[in-house]
Amino acid sequence: MITLYDLVGRDDRRFSPHCWRAKMALAHKGLDFETRPTRFTEIATICGGGQKTVPVLEDGDDTVADSWAIAQYLEQTYSDRPSLFGGHVPLTLFTQSWAASRLHPALIRLIVFDIFEHLDPADQAYFRETREKRFGQELEAMQKDRAENLPAFRAILDPLRLTLHAHDFLGGDGPLYADYLVFGSLQWARAISPFRLLEEDDPVRDWFERCLDLFDGLGRNAPGYD
Amino acid sequence: MITLYDLVGRDDRRFSPHCWRAKMALAHKGLDFETRPTRFTEIATICGGGQKTVPVLEDGDDTVADSWAIAQYLEQTYSDRPSLFGGHVPLTLFTQSWAASRLHPALIRLIVFDIFEHLDPADQAYFRETREKRFGQELEAMQKDRAENLPAFRAILDPLRLTLHAHDFLGGDGPLYADYLVFGSLQWARAISPFRLLEEDDPVRDWFERCLDLFDGLGRNAPGYD
Repeated sequence: MITLYDLVGRDDRRFSPHCWRAKMALAHKGLDFETRPTRFTEIATICGGGQKTVPVLEDGDDTVADSWAIAQYLEQTYSDRPSLFGGHVPLTLFTQSWAASRLHPALIRLIVFDIFEHLDPADQAYFRETREKRFGQELEAMQKDRAENLPAFRAILDPLRLTLHAHDFLGGDGPLYADYLVFGSLQWARAISPFRLLEEDDPVRDWFERCLDLFDGLGRNAPGYD
Repeated sequence: MITLYDLVGRDDRRFSPHCWRAKMALAHKGLDFETRPTRFTEIATICGGGQKTVPVLEDGDDTVADSWAIAQYLEQTYSDRPSLFGGHVPLTLFTQSWAASRLHPALIRLIVFDIFEHLDPADQAYFRETREKRFGQELEAMQKDRAENLPAFRAILDPLRLTLHAHDFLGGDGPLYADYLVFGSLQWARAISPFRLLEEDDPVRDWFERCLDLFDGLGRNAPGYD
């Protein structure tokens, strides 16, 4: 059995974008797996110690940390199963790099205090201290102007939006890991924030709904705000 | 013989990013072609009239406008030659959409008056009128703060930069149309602007140099600022 250590908040909220990438990748490969809900402050204790982040994948004797490394591992180890990359690792990495450098820094400002409020109490002090140090600002202050910041966030999604005018998924007719990358970002928000990121008629919203339905509703069945 | 109508400024400067995409795509397919230098104010007269933009490709009885349509046309018509997309049209479109929605709006503000200064005099009035109407600002004023705007422009290139840490090209070991897309943007600037966009040690600069060398220096041999 494959085990995935999966970040968890209160009420079983699974909010890590990186863990969602790994779960969708496992499902895409048709692999059975169980998730091990893990709080921020428990990460150092999993897998015998030494881990700094989740997701961490355990597959027999293999332990793999980092969602990108997990996707590469699954692609190589289970090469007889549906491909996650369709042969296009560099362009998928471009998409991930866009999410990491442009999408996440804008998104975190819209939801960071919502994350805090949905954490297990055991994690709240850790999260506040590390994030306020990283961003140089109180969590409440970061999120305060989110209504004003929303149009700029939506504009950041233009590369995805324009692509979805011509294709159902970044993978084309069906999803690939490039879709799961970006899905993870929006599923991060869905898990812990009632703030409405997308307009009703946004093609990105339709695509996100399609992603929520994949794999018998793996994403949709997780606790979150709809 | 294939003919490509190619935007031209004074001193044979070929500055259109969209025309560069088409020229690189033709070279990638190993096709012989000649370019027909075309001023903005001549576009309405080419191909018997009715054209609004360049590039326009003439290939026997086929006339194809728009760089993306030209790339699709070449891929389908010359399917026995090296692929431009490697099977990944949607992720290439994502890259183009990123360039169109994020890269070009930032880049135009750094070079728009330089474009004007390198136009054939016959085109200058047209360019000033249409662009000042589009942007609601004088060309000189748009470009004035470019030193202050440069760091934000460089940050926009992060998705490309992060990918190039792991790969020589967006296509992987060799270039694909995704590379030519973004190459066209930087070659646009090189053709008409002495303003230095990239730092010496930027991986994007190394990649651009590799692209300039492709196809016996097709890009490098064109008049521009090095």
